[in-house]
Amino acid sequence: MNWTLAARAAKMNPSALREILKLTERPGIISLAGGLPSPKTFPVQAFADACARLLRDDGPAALQYAASEGYGPLREAVAAMLPWAVEPAQVLITTGSQQGLDLAAKVLIDAGSRVLVETPTYLGALQAFAPMEPQPVAVASDDEGVVAEDMAAKAAGARFIYLLPNFQNPTGRTMSAARRVAVLDAAARAGLPIIEDNPYGELWFDQPPPPPLTARNPQGAIYLGSFSKILAPGLRLGFLVAPKAVYPKLLQAKQAVDLHTPIFNQRMAYEVMKDGFLDRHVPAIRALYKQQRDAMLAALAREMAGLDVRWNAPAGGMFLWLRMPEGIDTARLLPQAVERGVAFVPGAPFYSGAGDARTMRLSFVTASVDQINHAIAALARTVRQAL
Amino acid sequence: MNWTLAARAAKMNPSALREILKLTERPGIISLAGGLPSPKTFPVQAFADACARLLRDDGPAALQYAASEGYGPLREAVAAMLPWAVEPAQVLITTGSQQGLDLAAKVLIDAGSRVLVETPTYLGALQAFAPMEPQPVAVASDDEGVVAEDMAAKAAGARFIYLLPNFQNPTGRTMSAARRVAVLDAAARAGLPIIEDNPYGELWFDQPPPPPLTARNPQGAIYLGSFSKILAPGLRLGFLVAPKAVYPKLLQAKQAVDLHTPIFNQRMAYEVMKDGFLDRHVPAIRALYKQQRDAMLAALAREMAGLDVRWNAPAGGMFLWLRMPEGIDTARLLPQAVERGVAFVPGAPFYSGAGDARTMRLSFVTASVDQINHAIAALARTVRQAL
Repeated sequence: MNWTLAARAAKMNPSALREILKLTERPGIISLAGGLPSPKTFPVQAFADACARLLRDDGPAALQYAASEGYGPLREAVAAMLPWAVEPAQVLITTGSQQGLDLAAKVLIDAGSRVLVETPTYLGALQAFAPMEPQPVAVASDDEGVVAEDMAAKAAGARFIYLLPNFQNPTGRTMSAARRVAVLDAAARAGLPIIEDNPYGELWFDQPPPPPLTARNPQGAIYLGSFSKILAPGLRLGFLVAPKAVYPKLLQAKQAVDLHTPIFNQRMAYEVMKDGFLDRHVPAIRALYKQQRDAMLAALAREMAGLDVRWNAPAGGMFLWLRMPEGIDTARLLPQAVERGVAFVPGAPFYSGAGDARTMRLSFVTASVDQINHAIAALARTVRQAL
Repeated sequence: MNWTLAARAAKMNPSALREILKLTERPGIISLAGGLPSPKTFPVQAFADACARLLRDDGPAALQYAASEGYGPLREAVAAMLPWAVEPAQVLITTGSQQGLDLAAKVLIDAGSRVLVETPTYLGALQAFAPMEPQPVAVASDDEGVVAEDMAAKAAGARFIYLLPNFQNPTGRTMSAARRVAVLDAAARAGLPIIEDNPYGELWFDQPPPPPLTARNPQGAIYLGSFSKILAPGLRLGFLVAPKAVYPKLLQAKQAVDLHTPIFNQRMAYEVMKDGFLDRHVPAIRALYKQQRDAMLAALAREMAGLDVRWNAPAGGMFLWLRMPEGIDTARLLPQAVERGVAFVPGAPFYSGAGDARTMRLSFVTASVDQINHAIAALARTVRQAL
């Protein structure tokens, strides 16, 4: 049979991350690799109650086809939850916030379109954009986020810049308030649309991050949000907020890809959330993750002493970013670490261009404090051995 | 802000169907328009029991991130359910079978690629393909399905033919056994891949339809299936079966669009199905829909007497296809019918080229027998008035 693949298929590649995750799912391995929220934070009983109530009171409607835009009350709840004036009509419920990236790519990227991204950036975004065959352009980035001047220099003709300002995946860094102002100014001057991805914003440890870029630029940005980190990822519930200039096309793209996000999941999440549940639940997630971040920072200070290893202290989220001593390639280090019972994600795949082979991403949310202590000790032994 | 839309956005259009459905959701309207399964067929109690059991016994895993391929036991159940030798490794669980169309389009269609479709064909497939900018080519079709000779004549250079052999949407027709042989022979000679969509195949009334095309052509076809019509559409659960030549790319496309189909939904469906539930449940759906089809056929014979209206008698599925007398344009007839309390879908949008404006699609599954009787009487009055 003459299967002829589309040209774009050559641009699509297996997720390095997901392949690595498979290798590290061996029993006995402590994985700091995945971006898996701690299952301790899943409100299992609240979901069980919501399911029972929903199926008892309105079962047939919760199992029927539904509107592509999403469940009305959930769209209203999302609009009310966001810290700027959002109309429910601007909210589109998506099958995870990953789907928002696919829809935005379909609507905004032509083959060869320049698309600006951070250095490094979320691998899943690069993969969502890839089938539309953009030319990703890495913008210089530092501890405060993307560098506004470099963004401005590269903005001409670009379709958008993709930004993850809060507790970024993979680095854990947060864009400072001053940098947000500079980035917004530069984007306005260049007429550059922004896709702002904010799956981790609620997971702050000491104080909330500065307001989203979209709050001050609602006509110039598509905002992506997620319930995966504050409720549970297995429901695949996210949303986007878009201005009138692009919402109708995003909605048409959504209709074509899966008709609508599972209404059962939307209604179940709404049922759990509607009485202010998140106000009680999210602080518990913050406290747990802060404790685990603290444990990881303490373990790193203890175990990496004397090694030229650098890391940051994220103010929230799920990830911490390490840079190994000269001569260490983390992709080559990984199998040795797995031998010692610990897994991480090499940093290079997160770069749109040539990656920094000395970097790695560690998650501090899936493993317990005890496991973190063991894992960081094992990682330090692996590094010492490799030097 | 300079939002520049991708060229493909111009090829994307609001679903005529979904816009019509909105207009006809007014209270008091009996809608024969939607493709909504009868809510009476949703096994609400079985879902409630499954949810409770699943969350009690394995809640955290049912709410966590999961594999892009789908839930292992569900993939095995799908493979076992199909009437040819299928490896679970060839099964990919999708977020509704609509997503299978999006994935296949991404992997197989370049801008300008010729894609063969039936006359008429499923509108949702045209919409799923549209963003990849194919050139759809309508193949002549009769009561037995697509005409093999015309398919062969148009096959050169086409990426695939999209076929819905059982109780087709919109016409309700089924491809005969002899036609399946002719189509398979012609496809083999031309090296033409097939995308076989089979959401309605289980809904037969008197005897099962002939085996799927894919059963005799597993290396040359992608097969799409759905749980929407045998369990419930609100879960958005479908699957595809693909040969090794295309499975890896379909999986990569899947990873990029939504990481995975909600694992909660997959596990809940598996929990409901695992003890042979479908063997008991699906016959009840068949009996209900057959009764409603019979009622619609009887009402049409009674109410359309003396009018030059033609219709078919589908052997299963959800839809029946009508052709109105000369001079009637069903798109213009619709508002008049809605005035009289009945809604249908005009047939023209289902054609990839110029549509037959005298056709319409009626669903016999959502409305009760009483409602069907009222609705067909009102439709006949509308036609008489319009002539």
